[in-house]
Amino acid sequence: MLKTVLIGSLGGAAVLTVGILLGHYAIDKGSPAPSWLPDVSRDLDESMLQDFMDAVDNKKIEGFLRDLTKVPHMATSAGDEATVEYMMQHWNDQESGLDQAWRQNYVVYLSFPDPKKPNKVTVVAPNTTVLHTAREREKSYGPDQDDPEVVQPYAAYSPAGTPQGKLVYANQGKPSDYMLLNKTLDLRGTIAICRYGGAGRAEKAINAAPYGVVGVLVYSDPLDINDGLMSDSNETYPHSWYMPPSGVERGSFNTDYGDLLTPYLAAKESTYRIPVENITGIPPIPIQPIGFEDAYVLISDVKLEVFNFAKLKNSSNVMGIIRGSVEPDRYVIYGNHRDSWVHGAIDPSSGTSVMLEVTRVLGRLLKQGRWRPRRSIIFGSWGAEEFGLIGSTEYTEQYYTKLSERTVAYINVDIAVFANATLRASGMPSVQNLIFTAAKQVKAPGLESTSVYDNWLRYSNRTSPAYGTVPRVGYLTGAGSDYAAFVHYLGITAMDFSYTYDRTKTKARIYPAYHTAYDTFDYASRYIDPAIVFLKSAVDLFRSAATQLDQIIKSSDLANEIPLKVRRINDQLMLMDRAFLDPQAFPEKYGFRHVIWASSSSGNATFPGFADAFARASSSGLEGDWFRAHHQISILSQAINGAAHMLMDGFQ
Amino acid sequence: MLKTVLIGSLGGAAVLTVGILLGHYAIDKGSPAPSWLPDVSRDLDESMLQDFMDAVDNKKIEGFLRDLTKVPHMATSAGDEATVEYMMQHWNDQESGLDQAWRQNYVVYLSFPDPKKPNKVTVVAPNTTVLHTAREREKSYGPDQDDPEVVQPYAAYSPAGTPQGKLVYANQGKPSDYMLLNKTLDLRGTIAICRYGGAGRAEKAINAAPYGVVGVLVYSDPLDINDGLMSDSNETYPHSWYMPPSGVERGSFNTDYGDLLTPYLAAKESTYRIPVENITGIPPIPIQPIGFEDAYVLISDVKLEVFNFAKLKNSSNVMGIIRGSVEPDRYVIYGNHRDSWVHGAIDPSSGTSVMLEVTRVLGRLLKQGRWRPRRSIIFGSWGAEEFGLIGSTEYTEQYYTKLSERTVAYINVDIAVFANATLRASGMPSVQNLIFTAAKQVKAPGLESTSVYDNWLRYSNRTSPAYGTVPRVGYLTGAGSDYAAFVHYLGITAMDFSYTYDRTKTKARIYPAYHTAYDTFDYASRYIDPAIVFLKSAVDLFRSAATQLDQIIKSSDLANEIPLKVRRINDQLMLMDRAFLDPQAFPEKYGFRHVIWASSSSGNATFPGFADAFARASSSGLEGDWFRAHHQISILSQAINGAAHMLMDGFQ
Repeated sequence: MLKTVLIGSLGGAAVLTVGILLGHYAIDKGSPAPSWLPDVSRDLDESMLQDFMDAVDNKKIEGFLRDLTKVPHMATSAGDEATVEYMMQHWNDQESGLDQAWRQNYVVYLSFPDPKKPNKVTVVAPNTTVLHTAREREKSYGPDQDDPEVVQPYAAYSPAGTPQGKLVYANQGKPSDYMLLNKTLDLRGTIAICRYGGAGRAEKAINAAPYGVVGVLVYSDPLDINDGLMSDSNETYPHSWYMPPSGVERGSFNTDYGDLLTPYLAAKESTYRIPVENITGIPPIPIQPIGFEDAYVLISDVKLEVFNFAKLKNSSNVMGIIRGSVEPDRYVIYGNHRDSWVHGAIDPSSGTSVMLEVTRVLGRLLKQGRWRPRRSIIFGSWGAEEFGLIGSTEYTEQYYTKLSERTVAYINVDIAVFANATLRASGMPSVQNLIFTAAKQVKAPGLESTSVYDNWLRYSNRTSPAYGTVPRVGYLTGAGSDYAAFVHYLGITAMDFSYTYDRTKTKARIYPAYHTAYDTFDYASRYIDPAIVFLKSAVDLFRSAATQLDQIIKSSDLANEIPLKVRRINDQLMLMDRAFLDPQAFPEKYGFRHVIWASSSSGNATFPGFADAFARASSSGLEGDWFRAHHQISILSQAINGAAHMLMDGFQ
Repeated sequence: MLKTVLIGSLGGAAVLTVGILLGHYAIDKGSPAPSWLPDVSRDLDESMLQDFMDAVDNKKIEGFLRDLTKVPHMATSAGDEATVEYMMQHWNDQESGLDQAWRQNYVVYLSFPDPKKPNKVTVVAPNTTVLHTAREREKSYGPDQDDPEVVQPYAAYSPAGTPQGKLVYANQGKPSDYMLLNKTLDLRGTIAICRYGGAGRAEKAINAAPYGVVGVLVYSDPLDINDGLMSDSNETYPHSWYMPPSGVERGSFNTDYGDLLTPYLAAKESTYRIPVENITGIPPIPIQPIGFEDAYVLISDVKLEVFNFAKLKNSSNVMGIIRGSVEPDRYVIYGNHRDSWVHGAIDPSSGTSVMLEVTRVLGRLLKQGRWRPRRSIIFGSWGAEEFGLIGSTEYTEQYYTKLSERTVAYINVDIAVFANATLRASGMPSVQNLIFTAAKQVKAPGLESTSVYDNWLRYSNRTSPAYGTVPRVGYLTGAGSDYAAFVHYLGITAMDFSYTYDRTKTKARIYPAYHTAYDTFDYASRYIDPAIVFLKSAVDLFRSAATQLDQIIKSSDLANEIPLKVRRINDQLMLMDRAFLDPQAFPEKYGFRHVIWASSSSGNATFPGFADAFARASSSGLEGDWFRAHHQISILSQAINGAAHMLMDGFQ
């Protein structure tokens, strides 16, 4: 029964795409009209599309990327401040800037290693002799790694501490991994070593602590990230895109998103902050990431010295807007985070460069008076994403009602390019058609006779009863990038785009330099896309998606309809997703309220609340658990009915 | 500083009234136009107003009241079902019905006395001799009280139980009352007797239980309700409107509103229900209301026998709609509950009769094709209000998103007339001007040369810096009638109207027959308004308020504006109040989310979260309490900023 409901709501949701675009064609442009009527019909002229595409300049994008990645720009560092000013300068440009650009500041709680007292991992003999000391910095292969601003590999939000104990290998640090280990070993007083993957970063420590584990190490396994390659003499960077043996993936080790001291409140200077000891979802025991070079030599007694400290810091979003001509109170928001762990050439500067080129081209047409969109476009260059999606989350908290009521769609581009094989797109079902249409209009990079759509179909597809064989569009179920608050807290239709690699050619879990000191301009230009030409396609795709927002459906029935009727239909579709929000649905999950797209512990992609409750009840057989499953069905059913009612005129 | 903010947002909120009405005058009717333009301008013709007023028929209203109060119609009883059918028949009438009318069913958890085993209060001597037995039914003065369907006076949701103990007088049963008593008496094992008022019904028992009190009696004190009069030989009903000595105020004894088994979910048949033992906010010990006749003779050991039982029952809302011509997706909702405790002539049938006359007159114009409103008007005849606002609350839960996004205003008329001295109006500040303008257009009942406004000003006024001396408009801070879910859970602008008595002539806390078997057609027609003529004014007032929704402001600037711009301004104003909702603001208060209008424990009428936290911190001086006050300031400040942003175009 649920399946029918799901399919029904997926089908219904597809109508949303139609609705987003109705406004454009709703007005009969030929009618004799009151003075304001031409204004209503004013919109993107089709001839502008070609202008836009011609104006995209690969050299510009390359220049942006080079400038953005000159120095490390970790959130709130001097390098980050330089990128804020760089964005502001471009968005305020007289000839190619936006209508308005400004900086939005938050005071956020971040965690750093102590430069004067670096974190340490050592192997000690029983007589306290140090047998081995793990690297404190990654090996240098050029000036980028030599930059003193490269932050030591560390686990943000790990508590400080200096535990020592026997090392045990705990696979991926999942609950089942520790449960299994615990059957044969006394884990009390041990230090666990885990590979990345399988469980969230913080979870590797959170799962370990109940067994008495005193510290955790985490490393990137060459099988997971390097297709097994391990030698930097000829196999890894700088010889290929693979991670060198000393490379370490940094990351934020927290399960909740947004600023940890101001849950549900924007982190302004005067905002109330919860006591630090009340923070939830961070490691209860010290944890430290290391390279596989060190992971492979660690034996016996390991001493872990973590000196992380936390600090309130000023973090900035840079915001820009192009005001809509006809419906300025409807927003399409395009976001990308700006901060990186080190130089962040791929994550996130590839996306930032694309955004800068998009705004340059749109801004030029705007300043020339040749174009203005029907709806407002808001650009967000988010700060402190790497520490937990902080900039975008605080923004949604601050403007909660306005954004909820008016935002038509949120488009996220974080890492624009992992590689250049194929498009990777995720989004709500309602935007699938929009994405497909856009993908059909753009040629695949390096494949002049193949569209992005056809190329994508070749790499990743699925067969659906309604649509036949179509490319596979991913879900936005987790909190992997800045779409999280938009999807899970505000219920706004969202999309996330990148170009990615050929999964038949590499099994890498993610591009190998991810969150390391090797994610540099040099790395990106040598191994990701030597000519940066394919970036044009990413830009084209965004252009196409954004302009398509007013295009796809030409409903002749609506051509003579009054603007308020068109708006009504659009609003029905825009707000349908909001009906899936239920603040009571997931009391135990911070910031998750969307009953379809929240993350699921049982790994079920949809209806997470019910899926988890059902899995639990099936396994325990307890009456109370079955009651909880019933409760979740009721929550779900009320939400689906509420959404259906947004699409209906009556109330019965 | 907060005061400036408050005044600012009150002032800003006043603009809302303007906005609600912009649509009507936004279109230049003289323009040459596309085919749909005349439709946009179609609205209530001014000449209709006079037709409407002329059509109101006092005899009809009297007839409705007589029919509705023929038999007791407690929620879900046979009498209630008869009123459902009566409403349906009128709203489906071919000549004066609405566009559509239907019944909306919920399965709700109600509590009743056992007809076969009535609740008892007795005074027993140490040797178990019964010295006095309190009345089980109110004394009869006519056939209405003889009706076997008159429910025994009882406390709905009181647990069953037969406690016995020494009687102690606990004033109003407030926390401070029990605290004071406890200083001189051991309350363990006692039965407390309290008068109505000062604390909520359920609270009198909830406050008592921690001291070991085993049962509670509650009565209406003649000083509170009867201006001290007590004798039914010449002072009380049937000689006057005062409560006879045996009269008992019934009521629901619960602090949370809506169906108690389905919090935040509509109580459909299949909905998950929490276990009965998890219900919060109901009396933990037996409680029973009695008449002052018995209250005054109780002494020494009292035995209380309560045999209440709870049951799932089918309760119906009757819903009707007149669809809007131009903006059918904007709703004005007009609600009144239908169920009573006994015959309920004043509470609520006076309001139901007014509603039936309003719909008859509007429906006739509609069926004749002479009129259709610009926006849709939804009529709600709510069920089971007396048990905790259940019908209206379940309705808002079921259609949560649709109602949130589209409802312009909720107008509540519960008891239309307490008496005929003056108007009593409560509402958000944003509708103050709307109410004033409407009140100026209607003559006061029985005072042909005085407007309702001028008469009101004479009875109740205040002086404000912005408006000079104006009538006093009350707040909707509690959960006293069906506006609660609309205001506190959905954040919809609401108003509540009644005619009330002259406070200089009586100190009665409420009309004396409230919730007794004496609230009958006989009582209403003899002591409230012998000729029922003033009801016409109540009807006129509603008519005026409803039509004023499209009238007050004629902004010439907007006359040539495009419909979408007008809609934008209207939406800004309509949605401003939603920005004051914060699901995290009052974790301990069920269904309260509006940071300005929630009820306050410290008795402060606005900013309840902060006011309560501040009062607590000031009294305790504890650092943790000051932190909580700071937290509340942050919640409030984010909400106020969010609301201000709804009124602004930019984001900075």
